[in-house]
Amino acid sequence: MQPFEFYNPTKIIFGKDTTSETGKEISSFAENVLFIYGKESIKRNGIYDKTVNSLKNAGVNFIEKSGVKPNPSINFVREAVDLYKKHNLDAIVAVGGGSVIDTAKAVATGVKVDFDPWLFYTGEKTVEDAAPIAVVLTLAATASEMNSGSVISNEETQQKFNCVSPLLFPKVSVLDPVNTFTVPYNQTANGAIDTIIHALETYLNSEDKNIMIVDSLIEAIVKTAIDSAEKIFKNPEDYDSRANMMWAATLALNGLTGSGAGPKIFPMHMIEHSLSAIYDIPHGVGLSIVGPAWMKYKVQNSPEKFAKLAKNVFQFHGPNTKAQALAAIAKLESWFKNEAKAPVRLSEVGIPESDLDKIAENAYEISCKWGLKEYTKEIIKEILEKAV
Amino acid sequence: MQPFEFYNPTKIIFGKDTTSETGKEISSFAENVLFIYGKESIKRNGIYDKTVNSLKNAGVNFIEKSGVKPNPSINFVREAVDLYKKHNLDAIVAVGGGSVIDTAKAVATGVKVDFDPWLFYTGEKTVEDAAPIAVVLTLAATASEMNSGSVISNEETQQKFNCVSPLLFPKVSVLDPVNTFTVPYNQTANGAIDTIIHALETYLNSEDKNIMIVDSLIEAIVKTAIDSAEKIFKNPEDYDSRANMMWAATLALNGLTGSGAGPKIFPMHMIEHSLSAIYDIPHGVGLSIVGPAWMKYKVQNSPEKFAKLAKNVFQFHGPNTKAQALAAIAKLESWFKNEAKAPVRLSEVGIPESDLDKIAENAYEISCKWGLKEYTKEIIKEILEKAV
Repeated sequence: MQPFEFYNPTKIIFGKDTTSETGKEISSFAENVLFIYGKESIKRNGIYDKTVNSLKNAGVNFIEKSGVKPNPSINFVREAVDLYKKHNLDAIVAVGGGSVIDTAKAVATGVKVDFDPWLFYTGEKTVEDAAPIAVVLTLAATASEMNSGSVISNEETQQKFNCVSPLLFPKVSVLDPVNTFTVPYNQTANGAIDTIIHALETYLNSEDKNIMIVDSLIEAIVKTAIDSAEKIFKNPEDYDSRANMMWAATLALNGLTGSGAGPKIFPMHMIEHSLSAIYDIPHGVGLSIVGPAWMKYKVQNSPEKFAKLAKNVFQFHGPNTKAQALAAIAKLESWFKNEAKAPVRLSEVGIPESDLDKIAENAYEISCKWGLKEYTKEIIKEILEKAV
Repeated sequence: MQPFEFYNPTKIIFGKDTTSETGKEISSFAENVLFIYGKESIKRNGIYDKTVNSLKNAGVNFIEKSGVKPNPSINFVREAVDLYKKHNLDAIVAVGGGSVIDTAKAVATGVKVDFDPWLFYTGEKTVEDAAPIAVVLTLAATASEMNSGSVISNEETQQKFNCVSPLLFPKVSVLDPVNTFTVPYNQTANGAIDTIIHALETYLNSEDKNIMIVDSLIEAIVKTAIDSAEKIFKNPEDYDSRANMMWAATLALNGLTGSGAGPKIFPMHMIEHSLSAIYDIPHGVGLSIVGPAWMKYKVQNSPEKFAKLAKNVFQFHGPNTKAQALAAIAKLESWFKNEAKAPVRLSEVGIPESDLDKIAENAYEISCKWGLKEYTKEIIKEILEKAV
């Protein structure tokens, strides 16, 4: 087992009708907040009203800023920072999924400095202070509700970069599975894929064979994500399945899962970030395409963990390690395609083979930023070719 | 899935040779600390020197207080509180297992008040402040290194009571598996049994059948504890097995495991606390006796979870639910007896059948304190009879 540090001070409030507790929680640390959300859909499904009532009942004043998009933009962050500063607010409440929460984190850093918060994402500046954040989660996917990372896109430069700081943990996150009842099929599927890939980045990238506690926790998350998603596809208002999915998604990337497996590297996410930076496709869709392609590259020299995945998650025993390992990839790819109904090839989202160099170039910049020496431009292109 | 709140701000530093980081960590919040430990064995196995050197290197001054016993005593706590106050210290470093950490927590509350800290354990007073605690763990068992509970015994009243407060989370816990290399067979076994029972209290007491993420995480912990313990019994210096056991033990009761399963009740611990309060037997030994007895009572009306345990942990499929459920209990009891070599009957530790009323009386007091209405004196005696 490999050394690690784990620290996660986010308070989780989980359960039906917990959205009403948001205001009371916030009132313990803030009086005037910036209320950030994405589309107007939270007004149709009642989450907006539930949040607003909760804030009002607790005497928390708020200024609204809506319009966060998937692959959230640094331009939106800059506008929100200005609004926060203008009104001299004390905290941020993010009502949404990963895009909204990641935006809130970027704003939380930006309001404490006089320079452009994008510099935290390029790595030119380090976070030294941040405003407190509360979350009302509406999508089970990114685990941003319980981690210290944020990913923001810069449309001008076609860069999708991340920032990590212990100051970015939300202070409190309200996880009410009912708030995900109206999430449509494709977004539910994208969230499940994101959860599965989060868990597997650690599992498949670790060379350590003696980490039973780590691997078995990850297998539990992958099995739960698959099982819950299938039930949700049949009945979107199945509370228990939405709940299992929501908690599995949070646990998949809250820092605990994978601790002990060695350095946490994210090569599938690295290449996906380039896809969504350039083509503005949803993160889950990008992972559904990149995931199986990367696995077909990785399995060549490291089949053992894939074979273990086949056995423990898919109850599949092949005639030998290689066959068993390949079966794990085939089963995952088939699940992405046939159950999640997500694209698994670049052509399915209109990305031509002639763009591979451009994508590899973009991803290589992230590879350098993350120190993933194995992933040269050539290797990245080799992986992308498996997704053609 | 049932509603829950989760909050755990303890920082974990895990890995080989991490004991040397203790002083640096403490120096960020304290200059003068009370250094609490149990027996002189930490001087023989080098943990004492490693800790002292780390404190000295970081410029942290310390006063020593040794002699914490298993089933730690409120009298020791009172003496340590006086010492802390006399020297005007700012924090406590606990080097040991659950008894030492629980003592440190009691001292941490006592130094902030002018009354007897036992009142926090009887429930007459509520914790409103506590000194910060750092831990160097030397035994994988109780998870006190990453939770907010403390259990202390009062020899005069033969009471073993607990206190829970979010102020009791250690600030930092150093988990170096090497520090458990010298833990002898029986204590390693007791720790494994404690870990298994911690995990199963939630699993077996939940009526909720739709908590796949919760149950599968618990199954991962139980499987790991069994697998790691067997390897440690053969080779006490097997680093990876000590590491898997250590992290599994911490996860078994850090508040995360079992969240979503419903109210966390601990009937096996309730009866065990009476055994160790009256007879001063090790906690793990008490659980090894009470656990199977309680399971034989519980399975009568709720065989489903036991049957699931048999299938998912022991890969056993019986001809029907009842047979499968009973097999899980038989397999656990056999493991406690034959692998862990722990007693599974009261007579094995010299407790006569004529004492059952006295034990039931004592446990009933805890039952009332914990609000476990099902557990009347008669039911507790019925359970104890299964351990005769």
